[in-house]
Formats: sequence, structure tokens, C-alpha cells
Amino acid sequence: MMIIMHPGASRQQVKDVVVCIKDQGLSPHIIEGVERTVIGAVGDSRGISPDVFSTLPGVESVVRISHPYKLASREFKAEDSVFPLDGFSIGGKEIAIIAGPCSVESRDQLLEIAQAVRQAGAHALRGGVFKPRTSPYAFQGLGEEGLEYLAEARQLTGMPVVAEVMSVAQIEAMVKYVDILQVGARNMQNYPLLRALGEARLPVLLKRGMSATVEELLMSAEYILAGGNDRVILCERGIRTFETATRNTTDINAVPVLKSLTHLPVILDPSHSTGYFEFVTAVARAAVAAGADGLIVEVHSDPAHALSDGHQSLKPEMFSEMVRQVEAVAAAVGRCLAPVRNAAQG
Amino acid sequence: MMIIMHPGASRQQVKDVVVCIKDQGLSPHIIEGVERTVIGAVGDSRGISPDVFSTLPGVESVVRISHPYKLASREFKAEDSVFPLDGFSIGGKEIAIIAGPCSVESRDQLLEIAQAVRQAGAHALRGGVFKPRTSPYAFQGLGEEGLEYLAEARQLTGMPVVAEVMSVAQIEAMVKYVDILQVGARNMQNYPLLRALGEARLPVLLKRGMSATVEELLMSAEYILAGGNDRVILCERGIRTFETATRNTTDINAVPVLKSLTHLPVILDPSHSTGYFEFVTAVARAAVAAGADGLIVEVHSDPAHALSDGHQSLKPEMFSEMVRQVEAVAAAVGRCLAPVRNAAQG
Amino acid sequence: MMIIMHPGASRQQVKDVVVCIKDQGLSPHIIEGVERTVIGAVGDSRGISPDVFSTLPGVESVVRISHPYKLASREFKAEDSVFPLDGFSIGGKEIAIIAGPCSVESRDQLLEIAQAVRQAGAHALRGGVFKPRTSPYAFQGLGEEGLEYLAEARQLTGMPVVAEVMSVAQIEAMVKYVDILQVGARNMQNYPLLRALGEARLPVLLKRGMSATVEELLMSAEYILAGGNDRVILCERGIRTFETATRNTTDINAVPVLKSLTHLPVILDPSHSTGYFEFVTAVARAAVAAGADGLIVEVHSDPAHALSDGHQSLKPEMFSEMVRQVEAVAAAVGRCLAPVRNAAQG
Amino acid sequence: MMIIMHPGASRQQVKDVVVCIKDQGLSPHIIEGVERTVIGAVGDSRGISPDVFSTLPGVESVVRISHPYKLASREFKAEDSVFPLDGFSIGGKEIAIIAGPCSVESRDQLLEIAQAVRQAGAHALRGGVFKPRTSPYAFQGLGEEGLEYLAEARQLTGMPVVAEVMSVAQIEAMVKYVDILQVGARNMQNYPLLRALGEARLPVLLKRGMSATVEELLMSAEYILAGGNDRVILCERGIRTFETATRNTTDINAVPVLKSLTHLPVILDPSHSTGYFEFVTAVARAAVAAGADGLIVEVHSDPAHALSDGHQSLKPEMFSEMVRQVEAVAAAVGRCLAPVRNAAQG
Repeated sequence: MMIIMHPGASRQQVKDVVVCIKDQGLSPHIIEGVERTVIGAVGDSRGISPDVFSTLPGVESVVRISHPYKLASREFKAEDSVFPLDGFSIGGKEIAIIAGPCSVESRDQLLEIAQAVRQAGAHALRGGVFKPRTSPYAFQGLGEEGLEYLAEARQLTGMPVVAEVMSVAQIEAMVKYVDILQVGARNMQNYPLLRALGEARLPVLLKRGMSATVEELLMSAEYILAGGNDRVILCERGIRTFETATRNTTDINAVPVLKSLTHLPVILDPSHSTGYFEFVTAVARAAVAAGADGLIVEVHSDPAHALSDGHQSLKPEMFSEMVRQVEAVAAAVGRCLAPVRNAAQG
Repeated sequence: MMIIMHPGASRQQVKDVVVCIKDQGLSPHIIEGVERTVIGAVGDSRGISPDVFSTLPGVESVVRISHPYKLASREFKAEDSVFPLDGFSIGGKEIAIIAGPCSVESRDQLLEIAQAVRQAGAHALRGGVFKPRTSPYAFQGLGEEGLEYLAEARQLTGMPVVAEVMSVAQIEAMVKYVDILQVGARNMQNYPLLRALGEARLPVLLKRGMSATVEELLMSAEYILAGGNDRVILCERGIRTFETATRNTTDINAVPVLKSLTHLPVILDPSHSTGYFEFVTAVARAAVAAGADGLIVEVHSDPAHALSDGHQSLKPEMFSEMVRQVEAVAAAVGRCLAPVRNAAQG
Repeated sequence: MMIIMHPGASRQQVKDVVVCIKDQGLSPHIIEGVERTVIGAVGDSRGISPDVFSTLPGVESVVRISHPYKLASREFKAEDSVFPLDGFSIGGKEIAIIAGPCSVESRDQLLEIAQAVRQAGAHALRGGVFKPRTSPYAFQGLGEEGLEYLAEARQLTGMPVVAEVMSVAQIEAMVKYVDILQVGARNMQNYPLLRALGEARLPVLLKRGMSATVEELLMSAEYILAGGNDRVILCERGIRTFETATRNTTDINAVPVLKSLTHLPVILDPSHSTGYFEFVTAVARAAVAAGADGLIVEVHSDPAHALSDGHQSLKPEMFSEMVRQVEAVAAAVGRCLAPVRNAAQG
Repeated sequence: MMIIMHPGASRQQVKDVVVCIKDQGLSPHIIEGVERTVIGAVGDSRGISPDVFSTLPGVESVVRISHPYKLASREFKAEDSVFPLDGFSIGGKEIAIIAGPCSVESRDQLLEIAQAVRQAGAHALRGGVFKPRTSPYAFQGLGEEGLEYLAEARQLTGMPVVAEVMSVAQIEAMVKYVDILQVGARNMQNYPLLRALGEARLPVLLKRGMSATVEELLMSAEYILAGGNDRVILCERGIRTFETATRNTTDINAVPVLKSLTHLPVILDPSHSTGYFEFVTAVARAAVAAGADGLIVEVHSDPAHALSDGHQSLKPEMFSEMVRQVEAVAAAVGRCLAPVRNAAQG
């Protein structure tokens, strides 16, 4: 950490900072500048709050030098993490596509969509059964009934299944049915949940909060990693900005930024990051061109009657065309789509 | 809802929208404009998603006319909600001040600060025992041990106690010790938690999420109200913007906006909304001038050694001066601070 | 426009709105809803401010139905606008790459970079001579001397030249030397400048302001179009958000959104939209994958000694590699780079 | 400046940075940390771009220590700047209120409003004659004709006059008629304009850009100060955020932040910062409570027929009430409204 003193800080105030640095087990290095003094605090400061110094008299500000995360960093692990799943892997050269309805609405709806996305080239199936809805009066998901349909869809299509977990209490039931536990944007900083997922045996798909920085996303991943679960997949799903032409603003920069900072796989959700089906395919192409390791896309066979997020769902035939276009872009950047192995019954 | 058709929408597409409106139990009203057709859908559309219409062919966009919340609205209840607490009430003419440390760190620390803030004029005591920390390596709170200290501080000072609840599982223990359950910014859209608090017997202090709109804050309040708990106190605590000179941006507009939209009490947290103790007093004055019903402020007797948020904590003497200044502003806007009754042992 | 009345609005207030609508030459259509009345105002309302209605007693809000721009819209002109330039065109199937230094610093610097980017496949040369710098103490550009170097570089390489214009007074000198006039992000709403450019004979490259919405960008284009200059090229260059990992946030959504709303060509500036040379190539690929018609990229042969924006400049060899990669992505989305014709002397 | 090296930077790379620091006339101070090396560059670095260092191999990032502005800083001038105007002064203990219509629409309209705001307690008159409008089809202001009305209103009421200048070319005409030149939010970084105002003889009211940081606002002030004009009044007018309940988000934090960083007067514009007349008075009170030196408020006697910004304009009687309330808050914070001297004919 670098402690920057006020221009008018006294010699005694500088001395007090030096004492405080030593108290924390760090070594002080004083640089006397023209206008102000800067004091470097050398040592492992990951567990030390900048407030320890910033609240001392005469201190103007404190600048962190190191990243606050460790296990998630490229410095900790230089090579890309690759997580094998049922029939494909994520994080390697191959690009994975997760698709399915926003909400599981009925057995028929799910099985129909699952088969359609499988045929179109999806590698895993998404479908929400516990739904975080802004309104208490909106459809809140089928709950455990929906989990059974997901399991049936998995058996039918051979695709692993992703579903969102909203609370610690839901984990136990979910691990029996699903293959990847998704943490939604609204729960990215739900620390009891992250901590519990650190002990789960399943990979976690961690979505970026809608106003979370890239660093905060990595800190949330760090919670899961520090708990002992090293299979975290990061997901950019759009951030909240002043722009109202789209539901969110896809932070495409986050893809190469994350790939440079972390070894974890990075995927993108163009359905939420745009909010309009018209723009999903263009942004899906952009994600892969920017270096994303995968996509998670909402597909619905009857968007007009979807119980949630209909407006951002692709119909199966549009999804099929999206896969084709994404495949071409993947090849252009030296990658390829993961192969689709034969389904159990497919 | 108003359904706005594309300029090139066909007659058949308009007809299909009309059918869909009727299917939803609403009445269609067609307005043929110069460029495009607009169709009003009249009736109670609170439970109907705009997607039902926005995904139909030929539809350009759908505009909601009514607010999506009901119980929280002024239209539902015109007069201000006033919640009596132990020794004062919140939401009426009197302004309430909640103060205390960010985290409960030890028995001595808490009791010292509790007595200091009481003496300075605080009406309730805050103190976190389950702490939502960005880093898994930072101090996470004393947990249940801290709750006991809070109860002791209440007995000592006579002040009701506010503490943050982070998960459904914590509620049971907390209701035994605290008087107001706080939902932090990161959990404003933790719906299982909100739902559980709808069944709690205690008032809930609901903090605005750092990128939540005023409407979303009201929707989260609606979850609690719809669950049967009508005592929700709203708290503006700063939003996330591009400005880095302060930790957050105090959305002072939100105070009069909320007061116009809802009957619920509105308080402001100038500690988090600025992030620097130097600016807390000025923003506390502004909050009361803008019409806030109360303040929640971080106070620490030794900010340099606080285990969290030291940089935004006032020392007791600064807090005391803040109370004095806020009192003067309250009088200027025709209000007053709630009286401080004698403590049990005070 | 739709005028939405307060739930408690009186009959007389509705009548007054109806009179006001007629006064504006529009036709009123009343829809009586369950909670409130909505009044449609039918007719060409482009020149009418919503305030005319929103300030009337009993009115809650006013919703615009039509876009406020006309000449820039797809509805005005359905097919893509294609602007031929010297040796290539922009807005058609071919993708154009504009490259060069942030600032023209010297004759040698410019000529060296110009030749390097030409060899690497650039179609046009960029270079600032009037520089908008945040600090009055920073290098402000070479001014007219720089224009002469640009003209020389054009002659040497055969590339048309793009330079930023900061004020009406500079236009006269610039049109003698440059081929495209660039409006920087800070001047996107400099209306006297836009108006003057409406009368210029050169194409205008209009950069999006750092907190401008897509609609505001189109309104600024409308100023130029309405002035009689129909050659406007839109440029996404990143918007300002809370994220600090990059200089700006590339709004990749804006590419397909703009392509759907307007017939004007849309290009992207990955240098400013990321701020770090490490991320420029990834975002350049993404832009083309998303449907951009071109790129504008900062290149410097000695970024460490650049007088501005060194950190986001590619070295010529990195730029060359970027062109190669962008070319592959262009092919994947059914497009190609514009051919590079032989330079005058090249 | 502090140059932070990559964890894997080589000894040679550190040496190269040291050489570069010396080349810039600064002194290097090396701190070898556990993970990485940090090098302090001591000396006056105001004119040196961080890019000089950030682009060197092995450098991770560069942190500025000093503020980039000088003349605007409290370090340059500790005591508040107070600018005497005709009949009152701004920046001292007294609070000044500037009021008037958004646009000068006619002689009658202006004179009526001017007299009304004077009677209600305003100290200066605002009124736009060159209007920056988002739409080229909207009313653009009366131009020089409006200036004459402003001069007449000044003579009639004795109030100094504030009007917005949009380009260098307008300055010459305006200085003949107005007392304070206003730079609007959209022109805060119009550097040719700022430079020209540095040579003007009139005080400049500089509005913060809608996505400008506090530091950028001060850098724009620095342009004017560096040009020789030391009378700059800063104005917070709301920033652009994700919140749509109000037109902008009043950054009330900016008031105490600016007062701590600069000696220049700071005023607030609650009309633009909220966008709705209902919220103007509450935010005006908040501004003065937070320490603002003045207010600039839109007043219109017939807001429904205003040619611009009607929805955020107070009627004269509401303005009068606002002045009364602001006066009470001013007293509560130890200040007072500037006295209103008798008008020429008043």
C-alpha cells in the first residue's frame, strides 16, 4: 500500500504513520516529494484494510498496489482453468453454449425447448425454477417440481443442466438434480450463499452483479474458491448504465479484461446484456470474437407466452441460426464450438 | 398498458394484438396515429408482463401506465406511516437518528460507543454482527456473540437496536436480540430474505441497492409489505455512479421523490453515501433539509482501528456536533429531533 | 404523444388537456382506464415539447411515441447509406479501417506512422492537430502546421485524412487539408459546430459523447443532416460508467441498435473505448462481429513517447496483426475489408 | 507519480523506468515490495503524462499523487474567493440566488418574470438567448434580440444578468449586455470556448458536465483561470446516472467535496438537477444545508407555455416560497441570504 500524506502534514504525523505501518507487520519506505510525502508499506497487506492508515491524521489517501484477490488471479495460476462437464468442457479451446428458457414453466414446455436447443447445437440446458422477480406479484418459478423436469430433460437430451440457486436452503435439493449451480446478478454479493457454494461439489456459474466492477466479480469468485470449490465460471451479463435503448449495457471490455486477470472461464449472456432478441445474435458473435469461452442464451418456443423475459428470448430457429454464425466467428478467432455428442435417446 | 405498433405494422398484426389484450382480460382501445397505431389495454394489468405484448409481431414497444407497486404507494395510503419504537417514533414530524459502529468489534467497544452516541442525542443504536464484506479475508463480524453485546447496550442505554440480517437463517436468532432488522444494499433484491421478513414481527430498515432505481426499492418494500409486515423504513445510502471523489453518490433527489410516491418513512445514511467522514455532517444536514425522516450514521471512538469502514466513521465529538447542526436544520424546515428519553440506567 | 393523467385528476383537468391538444393542432383520443385516464394526441408532434402537456394540472407524465429524429431514421431511408471516399467506401459491405496517431507530433512521426498503417492495411489516416485536452498544461496539438503534415501524408500514401475539428473557426482551414471532419465526444452537443458542419462539403465522423444515449447521438446527427450535409458517420467510442478497469465501457450493444435505427454507417473506436492497447484487438474483432462498418484505431510507432494517449496506442506490428484478425472475423460475418488501392507514390 | 511494476518485471525493466524518470527531470525512489516493485517519481509532474511511464515494458500502472489542477486548488489559495457583483457578492457568507426563465421568449415574458423574481428575493436574473437544444427542430433562442431584453430587465430591476454563451463568436456581443457568462453542461469541455473566456473581463458561471467528475470540472475551471480570468463560479447541475425518476441525479456530495478542494464559489441548480418543479424546493434547501454559496433556479410565470424546460420551472409564487424556506435553512447553517438592494426603478 502507498500512503499519501496531505501537503501540510507534519513530521509527527508522518512518524505516526510509520509506527502504524510497523504495527501491521509491514515495512515503511518514505519518499519525500516536492509537495507531499508518500510512504510505501511493504509486505503482504491482503488482510489489512486501507482504513487503518486512511483515518490517521495527516493522511490524504491510501492506494492499494496488489489485487485484493489471490486464488482467482493469473498470478496464482497462469494457465486457463478447464472444467470438464458431461460431454464437453468449458474454459479450453472449445466454446460451449448453454441455452434454454428463462423459467421452467411446464414439463412440455421444457422438454420441447430442450430438444430444440440440443438439435440446434447447445451443449447444456438452462432453466430457472426459483426465479428472482422484481415484483412479488410475478411468477416466481415452479420450485422443486421444475427441478424434476430439468432432470428429465437431461436424461432425454444428454445435456447437463444449469439452474439458479437463490438461497443456501435451496442448495441441498438442487445438487440432486442439476449439474451447474448458477448465482444470479442480484446475488453476486450474497456472501452466505457464496460461502455455502464454496463447499458444494458442483461447478458454479457466477453472474456479474449489475453494478459490480470486474474486481468485485473476482472477489465474489474468491469467496467460492477460498471455500474449497475451484470450479467457478464467470459470466458477463450486462451492467447498468444511463443508456435505456437496451435493458443493460454489455460490457464487452470485461471479456478480455477478465481473461487477462484470471484463469477462470468467462462466458457471456447476450439475452440479459441486451434485453431484446433482435440484438442477441450480434452480441453473441461479438462475445466470441472478444474471446469469451461460452454463451448462455435464453430460448423459448413461444416467447409471446413466456412467463418471464419473453422479449429477450430467441425462438429455436433463430437460436439455430445464432449457433451457425457463432461457429463461423469461433473459427475466425482460432477456436471451435464444443462437439455435441449423441444424446442418451437423441 | 399502451402497446405501440411499428410504423409498418399490418392490419392483421393490430388485430392480433387486440385479441391478445382481450385474452388477458383487458379492454383494447385503438388510436390510429399519423405514423403508427397505439393500442391502450385498459384494466388491472399489475400481474401481466409487458412481454405478453412486446413479443407479438408488429409491436415496437410497450409502455406501462401504472406503478408496479401497490401497498407501498401513496395512492394506497395517502397519509405518512408512523412507526412507534421504544421511546420515539419514525415517520412523523420528529426526526430520528440511528448511530453506532459499522461492526460490533468487542463488548467494550460497543458499550463505549453506545453510551457516547446516546449522550450526543442518538435515538437508536446500530451495529453489524454479520458483515457483508467484499473480501473473504476481511473481518466478517462477531455473529451471535455480537448480538448479546447489542442487547446489553440496549439495556444500558435504553436505545432500540438495529442490526443487519444477511440470510433467512439468521432471522430467528436476531429477533431475540434486536428491534429493527436491516437489509443491506447488497441484499435489497434477495427475495427469499425479503419474503421471510414479510413474516417477521419487527420493523425492517430496507437499504437501497447501489444500482437500484427508486422504483425497484419500492418493489422490494412491496415484497415485505405483501408478506404482511407493514413496517418498512426506506434508506437512501448512495448509488454507484462514475464519480470517484466519494465512495457513492448521495441521491438527494430520492428523498423528495420517495416522499411523494410512498407513505413509508425515508431515512438517509450519509456515512455510506459519501464514504468520508469529512463530508458526513454536510450531507446529514442536506438530508434533513430535503425532507428525510431520519439518519443512520456510523460512529467509532477509534476510527483508525475500526475493523471496517473506519474512514467514514465520525468520532463521538464530531457526531455530537452533527446532531446539533442537524437539529438547527430540522427546526428550519418545521421539524424537530425526537426527544431522547432517559435511559434505563442512564 | 400519450398524456397520462394522475389517478385523482378531475374531469375538468382532462377537458383542459383536450383543449390544449387541439390548440397544438393535434387530435385527442381519450382512454378511460381503471385507475387513470390516458389521452392520445395524434398528429405530427415532432416540433412540440412534451412540456406543453406535462405542466398542465392533473397530468402525471407524457410519453413520446415517435422518435424525435427524422432524417437519420431507417423510416426515412430504409437502405444503408454508403459514402464513397478516396479509394474505398464506408457503409456498404466492405469494412474500412482508419488508423494513425492520436496527435500529429511532427512531420517525421506522422509520415512514418502513415506509411506503416498503410502497409498494414489501413484505408484512411487519422491524426489530431487541435487536441481537446483535459489539462490546460498538456500538449494542445500542432494546429495548422499539423494540417500540412497530414496533407503531405495523404499525398505520400494515397489515404484520405481524418482530423478533429473543435470549433467553427477551424473549419475553414481544415477543409483545405482534410477529407473527413471528426467531431469529438466532448463536442457531440456543440450545436453551433454541428450547425456549421451541416453546411460543410465534407463527410463528418461524429463521435458519441461519453454520456450520450444512442438517441442523443442520432439527434446530433440530425443537426448535421438537417443542415444539408447527408454524409454523417457515427462512431461508438465507449461510454462512461462506474467500471474503472478500462478507460471507458465499449457499448457493443450500440452497434446493432444503431444499425436497426439508422441508415448511417456505424464505426467503433476500440482505442478510446478500452483505453489500453492490450484490449484493443479483442474489441476491434468484437465490433466487426457485432456489425460495425469500420474501425478507427490509434497507432503510434513509439507509444512511450507519444504526447497523448500513448497507453491506448497500438504499435504498427500489433496493428498489422489486428487487421489480419479483423479480416478473418469480417469474412466470418459475410463481409470483407475494403481493398487497399495503390498509393499515389506507394 | 508512483510507477507500479508488474510482478514479473525484470531488473532491466525497472532500470529503464528509472532512466525514463530521470529523463523527465524527476527523481526516482525504488521500493521493492514482496510481490512487485514500486517506483516513486519525485518532482513537479503536472506537465508530464502518466503515459510516458505506463507504456514502458514491465509497467502495470501509474498512480498520480498530486491534483492535476493548481490555480483552482485550496493549496494555491486557502481562503474562499469572493466575487463582488452589482449589489451583492458571491462566495462569502451570504447566499446568492439567481433566477429567471430557461429561455428569453419575449420582452413581456422576460420583464414580467424579472420583476417577479426580484420581488421574491432574487439577486440576479438568468435567461437563455442562445439555447443548446437536443433537437434541431426545437426553439433555439432569440439570439441578440434576447440580449437587449436582458439589458432592459437589468435596468428595470437592478439585477445583474446571467446568460449562456455557446461559442467563441458569441462572446463579443454578450459582454456588452450581460454581467456573468454561463458555460452550459454540454460545453464544459469546449476548450476553445474556455480559453476565450480566460481572456474575458466577466465572471464565468461554469456548469458541471453531465458526466464530468469533480476533478474534470476543476480542470475546466483551471483553463479559465490559467487564461487570466480568476472569477469562476462552479455549478453542480446534476449528473447522469441510471436513475430515471428524475432528469438528472443531484450530486449533493459534490458541494462539500468542491468546497474542500477549491476556493472558488460553488452554487447548485436544482431545476436541472431534478427536472421536476415538485422537487426543486426540497433540493434547493438541501444545497444550502450542504454548504452551497448560491442557487440558480428556473422560474416561469406560465410554465405550460414555456418554450423550453417548462416542467422544471417554478411559478413565481412557488419561487417566493422557496426563497423563504432557503432563508430559514441558511440561518440554520450560520449564513444568510444576500440583501436585496433597491432596484433602479424598484
